[in-house]
Amino acid sequence: MNRPFARSLILFGGVLSIVMGAQAADVSLRTQAQNVFKALPKDMATADNPLTPAKVELGRLLYFEPRASVDGTVSCARCHQPALFGTDALPKSIGAEHRLNPRNAPSVLDAGIQFVQHWRGDRTSVEDQATKALIAPPSFGNPSYESAMAKLRAIPGYPTLFARAFPGQTDSITAENWGKAIGAYMRTLVTPSPFDAFLAGDDRALSPAAKAGLQSFMQIGCVGCHNGVGVGGGLYQKFGLVEDYWKATGSSNIDKGRFDVTQDPADLYVFKVPSLRNVAMTPPYFHDGSVSTLPAAVRVMARVQLGRTLTDGEVADLVSFLESLTGRLPDDFATAPRLPTASAKP
Amino acid sequence: MNRPFARSLILFGGVLSIVMGAQAADVSLRTQAQNVFKALPKDMATADNPLTPAKVELGRLLYFEPRASVDGTVSCARCHQPALFGTDALPKSIGAEHRLNPRNAPSVLDAGIQFVQHWRGDRTSVEDQATKALIAPPSFGNPSYESAMAKLRAIPGYPTLFARAFPGQTDSITAENWGKAIGAYMRTLVTPSPFDAFLAGDDRALSPAAKAGLQSFMQIGCVGCHNGVGVGGGLYQKFGLVEDYWKATGSSNIDKGRFDVTQDPADLYVFKVPSLRNVAMTPPYFHDGSVSTLPAAVRVMARVQLGRTLTDGEVADLVSFLESLTGRLPDDFATAPRLPTASAKP
Repeated sequence: MNRPFARSLILFGGVLSIVMGAQAADVSLRTQAQNVFKALPKDMATADNPLTPAKVELGRLLYFEPRASVDGTVSCARCHQPALFGTDALPKSIGAEHRLNPRNAPSVLDAGIQFVQHWRGDRTSVEDQATKALIAPPSFGNPSYESAMAKLRAIPGYPTLFARAFPGQTDSITAENWGKAIGAYMRTLVTPSPFDAFLAGDDRALSPAAKAGLQSFMQIGCVGCHNGVGVGGGLYQKFGLVEDYWKATGSSNIDKGRFDVTQDPADLYVFKVPSLRNVAMTPPYFHDGSVSTLPAAVRVMARVQLGRTLTDGEVADLVSFLESLTGRLPDDFATAPRLPTASAKP
Repeated sequence: MNRPFARSLILFGGVLSIVMGAQAADVSLRTQAQNVFKALPKDMATADNPLTPAKVELGRLLYFEPRASVDGTVSCARCHQPALFGTDALPKSIGAEHRLNPRNAPSVLDAGIQFVQHWRGDRTSVEDQATKALIAPPSFGNPSYESAMAKLRAIPGYPTLFARAFPGQTDSITAENWGKAIGAYMRTLVTPSPFDAFLAGDDRALSPAAKAGLQSFMQIGCVGCHNGVGVGGGLYQKFGLVEDYWKATGSSNIDKGRFDVTQDPADLYVFKVPSLRNVAMTPPYFHDGSVSTLPAAVRVMARVQLGRTLTDGEVADLVSFLESLTGRLPDDFATAPRLPTASAKP
């Protein structure tokens, strides 16, 4: 063999083994990831509340409907705005009559995959959450379910729409059906992301930095809580396992979390582990919105949950991975429906 | 000729003359209408604020942006919701810190065709309106323009977006440019309706009832004020020419209208004549939202402006005509943009 040819051969072999090595690394990373995460399903249907087109479309109208609130200013979309990925960008939401909510508004996107709703798990499902919001003072603020339903009943169009969505009921405009319709709509709001594409076999869906971040996320222990289809949303955990959370977040108030729901000392500072889907699009962070940026939130979590101080490079990679959880806004969420008006009735 | 054939011929001639008579009537109605109305243009561009793609897109983001308000709850879209055809369905809007606005929020759709903005004409243009809203207490509620701009400047993404929309300026994040960007976006929000199709020559665009309503609208005098491309929005007029308006509307307060702006006795109870485009989609009606339905509003107008009591049939026809002014929501309005987030910056 002449020298240039031998050199080319060696070079070719080297490139090949690098490429094959990279591919093997991707396969190995994917296998590890598939063990702890799952790609998003097509929807989040449940046997308790079957998704019919009439129910989902009614739920979509009701999601954008402010006229069922006590002062006419609050719809689901007020605190869960499409333009802000289903959040309001506030540390704590402000609802009916300008009342402050006790905690940060999480995104409604992919919310149906969580095992319970609300930061303290005191709502069992998206349906339960939507129904009880009607009478929560800092949410829709109505004095009773009946007063909220009376407002809806007075808007021409809704009686027919409810009757179609809930056939065979004498009076279908009820708070339970309000929750079922909005819940059904919410169960359609899935946001498949580059990470799902990677899980399904597309090596190019994640950048090298995101892949490094995913590796870290699994290695350093984030995955202990943030796992499954929601990358979180599947269990409760104490916020501040290693260190009091408020020392790292600078929170102005100490929230006792699930303890205030159960009075069980084991629940002190326990919250639902939030799903991290679309987390890059939904600052500020934590139950009290006390941290403004994702890199800062990542540092806080490593410190108070895992007792680790991350390097700048680790933070950047983890943020790249978390950004790969940003999906596409569903069309039926980004695009507002045309609500019924009272115009044509005398 | 045998009898059946003769009968057929007579019948054919009769149908033909009815059809031709109807066509002639349509032509005549269209000619009358073209004398007083105009079809919507493609956009509402102005030499003062040229529509560039970068400016319009920035304006669209800012339209949906709540973070520039004093409490983070008010965007243009809060009181001018896409799902409610650019209104909030309230008699009077509720803005920052739950402050009540003095008057009803008109739709932003086609608003740029009006000769002035606001019910009393105290905003010269959509740009002027958008800028001044930043510091109006019941609107965005900021203590100063500078404090509002500081909020925008702190959101990664906006400095670049403003620089692109307003090239060659050292600091382009200004209240004036906020108004220009939102104004440019608003000037793209046109909603061509069945009435525009009729004006352009499509006889089938209007129902017989809508055609009868259009004829009445011109004959009984509505057109004296509601004319031009906006079917209104081109002049001032006293509300209550024949009779005090509050006696017909049941308004709880008497608004002196433009008088409070100019102190000119000739301006007592004078308001801008609103554009009637999309009027069927934007209850409640009048400057104070005192009337809930369109038929009731039509009766009030006939009574206090023209001294007429309309029959039920006349009201129904007029409402049919007004419903033909409902256009299609522009895609860039119905669909929310993805706002910049603070996520990825450390």
